[in-house]
Amino acid sequence: MLYSALMKPAEMSLPTSTNVLVWSEFRHEKANPKVAAIYPGGIHETIAAFLRRAGGLNVSTAWLDQPEHGLTADRLAGTDVLVWWGHMAHGEVQDEIVQRVKTRVLEGMGLLVLHSGHYAKIFKALMGTSCSLKRRESSDKERLWNVNPAHPITCGIGDYFEIPAEEMYGEPFGIPAPDELIFISWFTGGEVFRSGATWQRGHGRIFYFQPGHETYPTYHQAEVQRVITNGVRWARATVNLPDCCPNAPALESLPPDPQATVDHRLAGLGARNPPRQRRISSPIDGL
Amino acid sequence: MLYSALMKPAEMSLPTSTNVLVWSEFRHEKANPKVAAIYPGGIHETIAAFLRRAGGLNVSTAWLDQPEHGLTADRLAGTDVLVWWGHMAHGEVQDEIVQRVKTRVLEGMGLLVLHSGHYAKIFKALMGTSCSLKRRESSDKERLWNVNPAHPITCGIGDYFEIPAEEMYGEPFGIPAPDELIFISWFTGGEVFRSGATWQRGHGRIFYFQPGHETYPTYHQAEVQRVITNGVRWARATVNLPDCCPNAPALESLPPDPQATVDHRLAGLGARNPPRQRRISSPIDGL
Amino acid sequence: MLYSALMKPAEMSLPTSTNVLVWSEFRHEKANPKVAAIYPGGIHETIAAFLRRAGGLNVSTAWLDQPEHGLTADRLAGTDVLVWWGHMAHGEVQDEIVQRVKTRVLEGMGLLVLHSGHYAKIFKALMGTSCSLKRRESSDKERLWNVNPAHPITCGIGDYFEIPAEEMYGEPFGIPAPDELIFISWFTGGEVFRSGATWQRGHGRIFYFQPGHETYPTYHQAEVQRVITNGVRWARATVNLPDCCPNAPALESLPPDPQATVDHRLAGLGARNPPRQRRISSPIDGL
Amino acid sequence: MLYSALMKPAEMSLPTSTNVLVWSEFRHEKANPKVAAIYPGGIHETIAAFLRRAGGLNVSTAWLDQPEHGLTADRLAGTDVLVWWGHMAHGEVQDEIVQRVKTRVLEGMGLLVLHSGHYAKIFKALMGTSCSLKRRESSDKERLWNVNPAHPITCGIGDYFEIPAEEMYGEPFGIPAPDELIFISWFTGGEVFRSGATWQRGHGRIFYFQPGHETYPTYHQAEVQRVITNGVRWARATVNLPDCCPNAPALESLPPDPQATVDHRLAGLGARNPPRQRRISSPIDGL
Repeated sequence: MLYSALMKPAEMSLPTSTNVLVWSEFRHEKANPKVAAIYPGGIHETIAAFLRRAGGLNVSTAWLDQPEHGLTADRLAGTDVLVWWGHMAHGEVQDEIVQRVKTRVLEGMGLLVLHSGHYAKIFKALMGTSCSLKRRESSDKERLWNVNPAHPITCGIGDYFEIPAEEMYGEPFGIPAPDELIFISWFTGGEVFRSGATWQRGHGRIFYFQPGHETYPTYHQAEVQRVITNGVRWARATVNLPDCCPNAPALESLPPDPQATVDHRLAGLGARNPPRQRRISSPIDGL
Repeated sequence: MLYSALMKPAEMSLPTSTNVLVWSEFRHEKANPKVAAIYPGGIHETIAAFLRRAGGLNVSTAWLDQPEHGLTADRLAGTDVLVWWGHMAHGEVQDEIVQRVKTRVLEGMGLLVLHSGHYAKIFKALMGTSCSLKRRESSDKERLWNVNPAHPITCGIGDYFEIPAEEMYGEPFGIPAPDELIFISWFTGGEVFRSGATWQRGHGRIFYFQPGHETYPTYHQAEVQRVITNGVRWARATVNLPDCCPNAPALESLPPDPQATVDHRLAGLGARNPPRQRRISSPIDGL
Repeated sequence: MLYSALMKPAEMSLPTSTNVLVWSEFRHEKANPKVAAIYPGGIHETIAAFLRRAGGLNVSTAWLDQPEHGLTADRLAGTDVLVWWGHMAHGEVQDEIVQRVKTRVLEGMGLLVLHSGHYAKIFKALMGTSCSLKRRESSDKERLWNVNPAHPITCGIGDYFEIPAEEMYGEPFGIPAPDELIFISWFTGGEVFRSGATWQRGHGRIFYFQPGHETYPTYHQAEVQRVITNGVRWARATVNLPDCCPNAPALESLPPDPQATVDHRLAGLGARNPPRQRRISSPIDGL
Repeated sequence: MLYSALMKPAEMSLPTSTNVLVWSEFRHEKANPKVAAIYPGGIHETIAAFLRRAGGLNVSTAWLDQPEHGLTADRLAGTDVLVWWGHMAHGEVQDEIVQRVKTRVLEGMGLLVLHSGHYAKIFKALMGTSCSLKRRESSDKERLWNVNPAHPITCGIGDYFEIPAEEMYGEPFGIPAPDELIFISWFTGGEVFRSGATWQRGHGRIFYFQPGHETYPTYHQAEVQRVITNGVRWARATVNLPDCCPNAPALESLPPDPQATVDHRLAGLGARNPPRQRRISSPIDGL
């Protein structure tokens, strides 16, 4: 028996589909007729619609004004990827629910953070940084350069694509160095921005994607839909590994040490928190 | 005038010395005679003493039970590197003060986190992850392998060094992938651990160094003192860049766009938060 | 038409299987009866056999003493992942063929480098570093700690696994910082080693995996087979992007500049080397 | 004696100055009167001149048509940082000398690679990738955004600076993911480029900086001079660690293993190649 007793090898069952939850504030759409005209059912419904058309994804939606923001513990437990759009009401998201989402990401749930979600509590909590940037709402054109053409997220995207009108987001962007840089944007007004980037935090994959100001029809554009669909598939949970900090017995014989003491306060803790691992799917088809 | 109006070029004044603040809980030393025998004035005083001997450092100390934990805004504003040791009372550190320290790190202050500080609120807030690990308080010997011999932090350290008795910390360690991996430890009981690692968060440098359980005389060992001294020098602040998220005017002429609207709610914000930069020292001698 | 003319969007055809080529020197097996007893058909045949059993992989083999080392241009063009084991005859691998393999990796072909392949010309050429390490052929036990439990390569592997007898490889290991650290090994004799690590180079994925000294039955062990199988699936090519360095026309109108000159030596080059992209499969099932 | 016998702790002597060698092809200047007018003594002399004015640097120059390209073993042994500019004659640099320079970088010598040096043999050998990019010699303006304002290389540089006319270099750039991204450039014609980036290879620091086409007066611009000067100081050698791959005796007692054999071919090698370390300076002032 060579496997560790502390962590069971992952189980090999394959999921029949990926559960995606698309969350948005759903406030601008109610307050601003211009936004409502572009996203009549809310930004979340537009995103959910193209994800549903992509196939293989089981897509549902939630928004801020639902009980528990639509993010109950049960629902998050069954979610493989969460897509997040927020802007004007970041402060209304309850800290307890932010912590709940963060725990799920660290366990393995994927997270896509869109546009003004750079300032969402959940993104800032996972990055540990300011997540600040430059911005300008004007008549800029944005050109997104694909700097990682072999990455799953850029599958189907060529050298670059353009968004005819978008809010400018500019460097410096207050993020930790990304694990993978995917897109760098050029703006008419003279700025650049790391507009697509990934990080692993705990066992979850995170993708930040910059386009999507609410007054532009960005989420109706084919390339944007393609990137988000790719991102959802790339980020989906493949494990579910709850946090543990076990007190671990030695695997090799230790020298006797009359000085060594055991802190009894801590010693029992590991036994009560046995680590568990559940590999919920393979990230590799056919495995 | 080619420099940006948004950020003034750094000023070139050189500091005459680096202000180091060594913080510890100072609780075990009062409760456990064994710990008090090893660290009579508290762990912070032992660390401060060898840093003072190293030269060029202006060292002071603070601890949990002081007002504001000894971490007032004024004091932090004048601190270039903060050294953190905590263990049994992480939960008593006030959230407001954690946020204050975090802000200073993001502005440029260096941070050394020692041993059980892996579970300190400030470390978890900057990492965004669980920071969990395996542990065992027993009679292990630890051997720290130097995997980055050209790094300033390993200056004066050879291929490896040993600590005769230390608490075992084992993988997996719930941290984001380090920017730089410095040490990997071997333990008698069969485990390994990334025992020295660095991250940049915002404009501050962070160094986590694993040795230092309170019941062992670890901070009296020459190699450990050398690594911490090197780490303090490496991590010291060279800039002070407050957070800003400015609304930025275009640098190039934009196309006319009758559709473009300005969000007046946000438009004024940048003007009230002009970004400032203060380069407080050069990280390069003689520059 | 928002896609770039310079790079066609990837095509969406899915491969029915992955073509894997397992290469080994096949010299120790002929010279040393002990090795021949462990790997009667050669190390490559043992590895090929368990990969064939895994399903979904179309596996063939090649070795040093075949014409062109069995690595003809045609054969490499049809290979999605190359597995490499070499040791005593690195110097006999022709430089021209090393360059041919390197070109294919940069275009997108995956590469697994095993054990003493750390000193193979192809690995050193892709890493750009010494790839040196410590070593000892003795009676060490090796324990591989899984430091990335959510990674596809560790699917089915628990907290750690052990190899009863292996050659010790120790730090410092002369590699660039890995993109992803997968395993850290503990050796009885007191050393540690980054025994599983990945890098992206060009559009290809590279996985180095340390176990496999020819005098031990390492490739007959279930966990080792599992890791290599996972690694092959993870590294398989999903794009085929030949190198290009195009002279690119401006996408936006440029200011007039009577001083600007065109270097006619270089100007025609891009036109003769139009970049091409072929997305040969999606890395995401069902996409 | 806790230090390893395999690697002596670094010595603490501080250098009185840093030896910088500025290398260029020195061909365009002889063939093209326009280039000669901008750089009368050659590009290397212009760069050497502003480095000399910076203070603390002992600067000399070398060029392609000197014996051994001016890069003799003795000269490289005494060099702390090498600055490299090449363009039209990359193919004339002898492979043996490229290997000699590479060895020195891996031992600890710093390397700055400028502009068209992206295609120099030495840069490609250290990166292991194509180093290809897009390019256009026209009337573009370039704006370099500082994405790492706390880095020593951007000391004295604000949010961004502009170069009135430069050759466009565009993404995708065929490099390994940088250890640190320093600058991202915006070009009038619509492209972006990672125009400043660092990597550690072996024990040496490498900085690639994109500006400097020979037909523009780029190296006369104050901000460009500042960045190169900062880069030289940041990259300077602090160690000199020759390559070794030692056969290492066990540090802990091993179990008896009658099966274990020692490969006598390899066993003596380590003894004849004892690893040596020479810490030639501290990277930290005052240490």
